[in-house]
Amino acid sequence: MKERLEKQLEFILEIDKEKNIIRQTHLSGGGRQENDAEHAWHMAIMAYLLREYANEEVDILKVILMCLIHDVVEIDAGDTYAYDEEGKKTQKQREDAAKERIYSLLPDEQKEELIKLFDEFEENITPEAKFAHAMDNLQPLLLNDSNDGGDWREHNVTKSQVYSRQSKTKEGSRILYEYTDKLLQKNIEKGNIKDDTSC
Amino acid sequence: MKERLEKQLEFILEIDKEKNIIRQTHLSGGGRQENDAEHAWHMAIMAYLLREYANEEVDILKVILMCLIHDVVEIDAGDTYAYDEEGKKTQKQREDAAKERIYSLLPDEQKEELIKLFDEFEENITPEAKFAHAMDNLQPLLLNDSNDGGDWREHNVTKSQVYSRQSKTKEGSRILYEYTDKLLQKNIEKGNIKDDTSC
Repeated sequence: MKERLEKQLEFILEIDKEKNIIRQTHLSGGGRQENDAEHAWHMAIMAYLLREYANEEVDILKVILMCLIHDVVEIDAGDTYAYDEEGKKTQKQREDAAKERIYSLLPDEQKEELIKLFDEFEENITPEAKFAHAMDNLQPLLLNDSNDGGDWREHNVTKSQVYSRQSKTKEGSRILYEYTDKLLQKNIEKGNIKDDTSC
Repeated sequence: MKERLEKQLEFILEIDKEKNIIRQTHLSGGGRQENDAEHAWHMAIMAYLLREYANEEVDILKVILMCLIHDVVEIDAGDTYAYDEEGKKTQKQREDAAKERIYSLLPDEQKEELIKLFDEFEENITPEAKFAHAMDNLQPLLLNDSNDGGDWREHNVTKSQVYSRQSKTKEGSRILYEYTDKLLQKNIEKGNIKDDTSC
């Protein structure tokens, strides 16, 4: 049986791989694509600074932890782009296997705690999970808008697709959804997001 | 006067630049050099998982926040390598100017709160600051050790240098320092760290 600290450090070294999981979103300024670790870091700071806009009182430590660990499973399962309908069909199965393998590196009670936190995020029922999801939606939106919608244009993303995802932000924060809505309208008007709803 | 939310989002977009501040440490597996945002993400998760080893009881939310924001100033001031003695002479001056510019993007009370947190980290007196520093030391050590000490070899780092930095870990965690010490001894024996103390 490995020592407790060794197990913890093995997990810590394993999650270093998250820095190699590349997302579709480009850094602000039209740079390279960002990776999961950077995205999680950004979301965690956002959650802290924007917590006043959560619809309900949130345990901010829990929200931050969710932000930090929500993409660890992608080390094995890969990043599934928000508008990749084929990939989304197998996403849960891939992520469940990853969750079991990666968190099993930790001592049992930390494994259980982090899996519980990840499951709570995924189920998206508690105020903390809803607010963390609002950050998960808002973070790439801000970067993409700052790049004049380059990621939407590259993937031919439509108004229906983007609203289907972004409208969930209002479950976590009505105020941040109002902002999101204005920003999406602007990008639809500019043609960065295709309007597939007007006929 | 800008709206509060706009100020917050301006800061959030500004700190995206931290993803372009490159450190000397290489990712585990001998990959590319890591950046400040990834390093901060890694430290924050480490702090949560290893908090039981802090010498004194810590407010873990505060430690995590310190880990997340401690390198924001490097957006302007750049990364100063731990063993760059010339760079360290002007580090404080560069970082103070950066701190003022970047945190001034936020609403006043959030600016003050984050500067206070950063100053507390820098002063390194409270249990939270000392434990966050232990993470700041341990994180690159784990990566570097996993790469057979490549970063130490590349920079001809000596035993005196590395102990001068790493011995501060014991102020935050005696247990993690014991582990650090074993790991350094192993790397000195292997010749990855030059022994400049035996004569």
